[in-house]
Amino acid sequence: MLKSFYKSTLIAAVVMVTSANAFAADKVYRLKLAETWGPNFPVFGDSVKNMVKMAEEMSNGRLKIRVDSANKHKSPFGVFDMVKIGQYDIGHSASYYYNGKVPNTLYFTTMPFGMTASEQYAWFQYGGGQELMDEVYSAHNLVPFPGGNTGVQMGGWFRKEINTVEDLKNLKMRIPGFAGEVLAKLGATPVNIPPGELYTSLERNTIDALEWVGPSLDLRMGFHKIAPIYYMGWHEPATELMFIVNKKKLETLPADLQAILKVAMRKASYDMYVQSYALSAENWAVMKTEFPDIQVKTFPPAVLSAMKKANDEILEEKASNDPMAAKIIKSQQDYLKLVRVWTDISEYGYIKSTKELAK
Amino acid sequence: MLKSFYKSTLIAAVVMVTSANAFAADKVYRLKLAETWGPNFPVFGDSVKNMVKMAEEMSNGRLKIRVDSANKHKSPFGVFDMVKIGQYDIGHSASYYYNGKVPNTLYFTTMPFGMTASEQYAWFQYGGGQELMDEVYSAHNLVPFPGGNTGVQMGGWFRKEINTVEDLKNLKMRIPGFAGEVLAKLGATPVNIPPGELYTSLERNTIDALEWVGPSLDLRMGFHKIAPIYYMGWHEPATELMFIVNKKKLETLPADLQAILKVAMRKASYDMYVQSYALSAENWAVMKTEFPDIQVKTFPPAVLSAMKKANDEILEEKASNDPMAAKIIKSQQDYLKLVRVWTDISEYGYIKSTKELAK
Repeated sequence: MLKSFYKSTLIAAVVMVTSANAFAADKVYRLKLAETWGPNFPVFGDSVKNMVKMAEEMSNGRLKIRVDSANKHKSPFGVFDMVKIGQYDIGHSASYYYNGKVPNTLYFTTMPFGMTASEQYAWFQYGGGQELMDEVYSAHNLVPFPGGNTGVQMGGWFRKEINTVEDLKNLKMRIPGFAGEVLAKLGATPVNIPPGELYTSLERNTIDALEWVGPSLDLRMGFHKIAPIYYMGWHEPATELMFIVNKKKLETLPADLQAILKVAMRKASYDMYVQSYALSAENWAVMKTEFPDIQVKTFPPAVLSAMKKANDEILEEKASNDPMAAKIIKSQQDYLKLVRVWTDISEYGYIKSTKELAK
Repeated sequence: MLKSFYKSTLIAAVVMVTSANAFAADKVYRLKLAETWGPNFPVFGDSVKNMVKMAEEMSNGRLKIRVDSANKHKSPFGVFDMVKIGQYDIGHSASYYYNGKVPNTLYFTTMPFGMTASEQYAWFQYGGGQELMDEVYSAHNLVPFPGGNTGVQMGGWFRKEINTVEDLKNLKMRIPGFAGEVLAKLGATPVNIPPGELYTSLERNTIDALEWVGPSLDLRMGFHKIAPIYYMGWHEPATELMFIVNKKKLETLPADLQAILKVAMRKASYDMYVQSYALSAENWAVMKTEFPDIQVKTFPPAVLSAMKKANDEILEEKASNDPMAAKIIKSQQDYLKLVRVWTDISEYGYIKSTKELAK
């Protein structure tokens, strides 16, 4: 009995050491994520769901992430601040939404006449883009990651053709943000209208045109039923959403869970690009079948050229006022020059030279 | 004392239950991976290293993967069989290498005149491609995953221009696999030469031309120093490597480690595409600076058209002999039709319409 007693004590002692690890390894970390989007928002919201599911499965349930949509937290464009102060641990949003608050967040979503998705991912990972983004966000206790790419966004739905720069004068168009600034410089009137009122505004000629995303999200909005001209993109060639994580909170996670979270976010971003590509192709086929008269057009060269000039002037102004803005703009412009030469030889050159054969 | 004894026993009993879980959670799973490539092979080997590192970090060391390169296992094109019989647990290779053994593996790497990387990822994930690949591999106790994309491979280094279909007659070219079959149908003589002898063979006119990958891997081979013409790609528009996992072995892993392995492989595949894109751009700039006389050309339309015709005839023959081949070929051709329309409107259309402005 005495022997047995010592044995038990020994087992207890040995096993308690192991169990301390066991309890650490079993500890569940509960994180809260705020997304800019409403509940069940297609594609953008799918990227979040995809990330959360991967993180939970890979961590065997040790990482549980509660997702609050905009209807819950009531602050779609307050995600930056809510994660910064720790009200939420993670956010899913778009960097350029915060350019009114932190001007240099503007550059990490997409830029007019800028890089395509593949080019921009190359810039983020091999051209210094991620480091520049880290620098802008670290001052706010935030760690930023790419959050999913829409691919090229379309130039928008128009009821009348744009043939000259003159046609942009007094054009009332829903086109928010930086692209709106560019058009305003050319005499257009950019307006912002809640998504739920867009269809009616276009139908009743309250606005002349609008841009949303592309077929992946435009199909359900129904714009193709009332505006016959679908202009190709120029202003958002590779819209990348973002995940932001509260830096202090991230550092409290064990190293394996940090790795899981980071890989899940990065994979979710690529996955959303693939989903957007597939869904755009499928939805465009539906639109074109239902409404065979939709005309897909590019803006005339003179119009694009005027837009580019206005774009460059605004960027020059930003660069001259802010050394960090200058650094980011130069990095993007230099990388675009380097990488576009390769795009021209590879994917663009391939599609161009085999175009007639692909039919 | 007696009280203390019972307490110890109780603790021992309680903690032993926990410790059983602790031991399970701490168990290290050691897997062996065979890669087709030699040690430290750039880009392709990086994809494997990237995957292994992510898997180890995310599993907190519970998943340890030993990588054997071709110099170790001596069977670069035996990876399929070695993983099938369980000599290795995982392989990294390219599906089309095994088309002599299992003909329908041909279709899951890239096809001449086929999809680009983004289009092909969309096909794998939303167009039924992954399911078809699973079907082909499941008969061999293998679970296949995308393993990294090179982007568009260049058409190759030529010492003389190809102006007509006649110029392909008796052209001795290093171009293995299906693309070699296509050229053979047009009178060329495809030859296979070990990588280490390629440079000398081209220099001494033992061969007239060769294709390798693209700037990402061609730079170190030095072909640009001895062949002035670099033709754009037609035969491998989106070469996707693959990971294959022994099915029975995969099923012995706990669910969280299966999830970690799968996510790590999938993310590594995207990462390699981005790396290839960035490195191609960088290396092309180096080549062009060192040898400004390199001419980048597309094959003339009549030559491409003859290649396409030969390609389609071989595919038709394969489809007529094998219902599964017919099913895969139809799936790819249908998806290409659907998705290329979107590419034309989006990334291709964007680059085309802004081409002059990007300079």
